[in-house]
Amino acid sequence: MNITFFLYEGCTGLDVVGPSEVLGRMPNVELNYAAQWKGEVQTDTLAMKLFATHSIEEIQSTDILIVPGSTVSFLEILQNKKVLSWIKGLHGAAQYMCSVSSGSIILAAAGLLEGKKATSHWYSQRFLADYGVKIVRERYVKDGKLITSAGSSSGLDMALYLASILVGEESAKAIQLMLEYEPEPPFESGNLAKATKEVMIAAKKKLKEDAWRSGILTLI
Amino acid sequence: MNITFFLYEGCTGLDVVGPSEVLGRMPNVELNYAAQWKGEVQTDTLAMKLFATHSIEEIQSTDILIVPGSTVSFLEILQNKKVLSWIKGLHGAAQYMCSVSSGSIILAAAGLLEGKKATSHWYSQRFLADYGVKIVRERYVKDGKLITSAGSSSGLDMALYLASILVGEESAKAIQLMLEYEPEPPFESGNLAKATKEVMIAAKKKLKEDAWRSGILTLI
Repeated sequence: MNITFFLYEGCTGLDVVGPSEVLGRMPNVELNYAAQWKGEVQTDTLAMKLFATHSIEEIQSTDILIVPGSTVSFLEILQNKKVLSWIKGLHGAAQYMCSVSSGSIILAAAGLLEGKKATSHWYSQRFLADYGVKIVRERYVKDGKLITSAGSSSGLDMALYLASILVGEESAKAIQLMLEYEPEPPFESGNLAKATKEVMIAAKKKLKEDAWRSGILTLI
Repeated sequence: MNITFFLYEGCTGLDVVGPSEVLGRMPNVELNYAAQWKGEVQTDTLAMKLFATHSIEEIQSTDILIVPGSTVSFLEILQNKKVLSWIKGLHGAAQYMCSVSSGSIILAAAGLLEGKKATSHWYSQRFLADYGVKIVRERYVKDGKLITSAGSSSGLDMALYLASILVGEESAKAIQLMLEYEPEPPFESGNLAKATKEVMIAAKKKLKEDAWRSGILTLI
């Protein structure tokens, strides 16, 4: 089985690496990392870089595509016809087309989410509406071969769910145990409904600053 | 504030990227990625690579060091005097020395955990005993300036805890909300105490196969 992650300048590292750790532990799987250019890819987190093993031209089909979100660099990707047409082209033969966080907006821009149920990071859900998406507030949601998930950390949950579809629940549980994925966040503040107003304002302010630096603010 | 991640061939990507996403969202912080050689660093997950921005010689002090674990490549690092002496050398001036998963064994090999309370991935806790560590089974544990955590996914929890020490609980909560870190794993199998015997056997088998391929099995 072949799994491709789409990397782009400013994508969020956790959206890529979380699902990689889960899906890469399935048997007989190959992970590819495809970007517009092979080599280093700057993430949206300071000096952190990922690495593209392939250019998108080199990946003409894949069993599964995973599209990460970004806090900074949608605009270039959402207007990039080459990238959007590459994603659309993979859809027909793929078993699943997935996204983490605001990556669902990229799937939507490629024309894959019209009329579908989908989700996104809480801050970016509003942009999905422009693409005729039925927005749901779930940790992850499957509609046909499209699987979308919420903010960054949800990629782990979605990938475990996907692994259970692909290789069965027992194998997915073994992967969960290998990653010792029994989360114990020290606070209960990972969800809009639970965060205080002050925390929400602070989070929005930081997200807006990041977006401002990159030009994405024109979208917000 | 300066935060350094130690990268090495075969380290686990999530151990690096999880804490990076949390700590990199603190204000006025710099993230560095240091390895024996600058450039691409192969992780223990198939084709996934990280990127070292610095050689270890270039980092002579850091406020915080984070050492990831590995499912495959301890042996070389545990016997590498240059690396261990570099880690030990950072200890004096650092505010915190942290590890994720089996990274605590590297901190122990550098002589930093003797007589200290520490934890590790469930599969690698046994190796800590050889270094005179007081092994505790917690998601993360702080003993003085040493903070160690459990298997890969615990790096997110530890980093949120560390962020709350460094920049206060309100800011840490805002980071948690930005990452939408309200985990909902589809199964309850992330902990030895909850996994079935069959799942535990499957997880151990896979961990052993990975270790075997790399030579670390001589340690197990």
